[in-house]
Amino acid sequence: MYLDLLLVGFGHVARRFVKLLDERASVLHDRHDVRCRIVGVTTARHGAAFDPNGLSTAVLLDRYASGSSIDGTDRDRAGRDYSWLLSEARHHTATACAEGRVVLIETTPLDVTNGGFPAIDHVREALLAGAHVITANKAPVAFGYRDLAARAAAAGRRFFFEGAVMDGIPIFNLVRETLPACEILRFRGVVNATTNFILTAMERGRTYHDALTEMQRAGIAEADASHDEDGWDAAAKTAALINVLMDGDATPLTVAREGIRAITPDRVHDARARGRRIRLVASAQREGGLLLGRVAPEELHPGDPLAQLDGLQNGLLLETDVLGTVGILQLDGGLTQTAYALLSDLITIAKQGTRDRNRGHSLAPSP
Amino acid sequence: MYLDLLLVGFGHVARRFVKLLDERASVLHDRHDVRCRIVGVTTARHGAAFDPNGLSTAVLLDRYASGSSIDGTDRDRAGRDYSWLLSEARHHTATACAEGRVVLIETTPLDVTNGGFPAIDHVREALLAGAHVITANKAPVAFGYRDLAARAAAAGRRFFFEGAVMDGIPIFNLVRETLPACEILRFRGVVNATTNFILTAMERGRTYHDALTEMQRAGIAEADASHDEDGWDAAAKTAALINVLMDGDATPLTVAREGIRAITPDRVHDARARGRRIRLVASAQREGGLLLGRVAPEELHPGDPLAQLDGLQNGLLLETDVLGTVGILQLDGGLTQTAYALLSDLITIAKQGTRDRNRGHSLAPSP
Repeated sequence: MYLDLLLVGFGHVARRFVKLLDERASVLHDRHDVRCRIVGVTTARHGAAFDPNGLSTAVLLDRYASGSSIDGTDRDRAGRDYSWLLSEARHHTATACAEGRVVLIETTPLDVTNGGFPAIDHVREALLAGAHVITANKAPVAFGYRDLAARAAAAGRRFFFEGAVMDGIPIFNLVRETLPACEILRFRGVVNATTNFILTAMERGRTYHDALTEMQRAGIAEADASHDEDGWDAAAKTAALINVLMDGDATPLTVAREGIRAITPDRVHDARARGRRIRLVASAQREGGLLLGRVAPEELHPGDPLAQLDGLQNGLLLETDVLGTVGILQLDGGLTQTAYALLSDLITIAKQGTRDRNRGHSLAPSP
Repeated sequence: MYLDLLLVGFGHVARRFVKLLDERASVLHDRHDVRCRIVGVTTARHGAAFDPNGLSTAVLLDRYASGSSIDGTDRDRAGRDYSWLLSEARHHTATACAEGRVVLIETTPLDVTNGGFPAIDHVREALLAGAHVITANKAPVAFGYRDLAARAAAAGRRFFFEGAVMDGIPIFNLVRETLPACEILRFRGVVNATTNFILTAMERGRTYHDALTEMQRAGIAEADASHDEDGWDAAAKTAALINVLMDGDATPLTVAREGIRAITPDRVHDARARGRRIRLVASAQREGGLLLGRVAPEELHPGDPLAQLDGLQNGLLLETDVLGTVGILQLDGGLTQTAYALLSDLITIAKQGTRDRNRGHSLAPSP
């Protein structure tokens, strides 16, 4: 199956993704019968490009690295925004759109101050244009899951977001594909790498500031790290998990939230002296008919699987009705893992497309 | 979709499974469009029964509990073995067999002394008769995976075994459905509940014998617990994981194996005094082109996620090429979890059957 990709956002994750796509091209083709090409990209500060015959990954990355616009000009051409990208796609890849062979890769950053926009609009408009959508941005699933899932179903397209929580470690796929006839009753997790890295570093005698700076240099924390420090990132992930796994209707704003800025070295060492460890825990449970989400630093008993998560490690414990508690751990975190989440969703879309095609639906192979 | 079930083996797991099937009937029907009925059962010591119109779960369980034969007679009728069951199925449910609506549920105990037989024959013959096969017995996948997978593919039927490792916690489904384009490079796990329960109990001052007796009373360890104690159960699981996740060709006999009988209270307490914990670890890795499986007690560092697994808890760490290490933990173990594995595989078969039917294959709904 041939897929045409549109990229909105070309930051660390998207750039790692296009490299991974090249590195894994033979696996994609040989094992999953998928061939991909990038036909359009818009960036925040490096212009935009579209070519229905495919853009070169190497050229895009070179131009980005050199600081010029990714279309080869030395400046940002006015009007080349997301609407322009979709309009180009509708015009130049109309057949592929109609056949469900266009996929939007959405990697713009999370913005909690404006209800998930513009990312939600990106998803809506792409679905209207006939594209599937894969996002690593938590905003659409944290603020607009129910609406977007309904729109995707109505359009006969997919809306996937495996990378929104715990990078490429399957969470949403795990529950959807491998836990049928199970209800998720509650969950607890360590889901933010930056804060976990800071708390672990403080246990080892480093300063908060020093650890945060290292995360920013590695591209894992933003220059403005308040999203991580104040628990917004974890709250958005909590809302996403509530919405998808527990059929809830949360947003990051409905999750009770306390960040880690008030955690002092004394408090970390005091807990350590009592055999405890402080972790930023995201959780949700039902109470009196309500689904309550919460993000807060907690002192964990050493036997708690979440207490063992150091540095960039993440983990999630799902309490189910029939299987008891199932834990899934991400013991290595990083950009590659997040980029892999996009790849994993892409393969799922391709597999389902092939299935639909075999069923005699409208999908057809590219000439 | 209507499914007719044949049960070979009616021990703890199978009896919990048929109860679970009743308890979850509405979820199966409403959410997955599956209706099941049990049409045939053979047992080791309680006779056999077959009725193409369906057997009553309550009656089967009552008769079993009362010690009489499950067909209502007070004795075992000669010749009512597995061949009889399949012959009845071929004769009385021929249409369902041809339509892929018959599923064999294989729960006979693991026997490592005879190369996986008779369980392997149960699977082969059921596939030949047109049935899908789900097993909680490790023998077929540990001794004959490659052959059985090929036979199932040739027959257009499914051979599933999620319950063979870590009960209902998805391992095989996890890798198959949610980790595409990932290679499993090596794994390490705690996969046997009885030995982990004994080691944990010894840490708390109980005797080996006392802990083992408790496991036998709970129906988790067999009266002859040597399979657990000598590492055979863990070795069979290791072979199964090697065969399925790493495309290997292992058997329980090719896995280097050391059990826990030599672990003394002194050794457990000595490790504990040094902050370490002894766990029976199952692992596999590639070395010089070979896939080496191993089961042995290991002293684990407290930061090792496997070291935290107490009592009936199990866990598996999968080292992958692109995602780093992914861990999956079973924090509650028990019969319900194993029975759920069979249910989970049953739903997968039903979903795939519905898909095939929609594609216009030969499967048709029952009248």
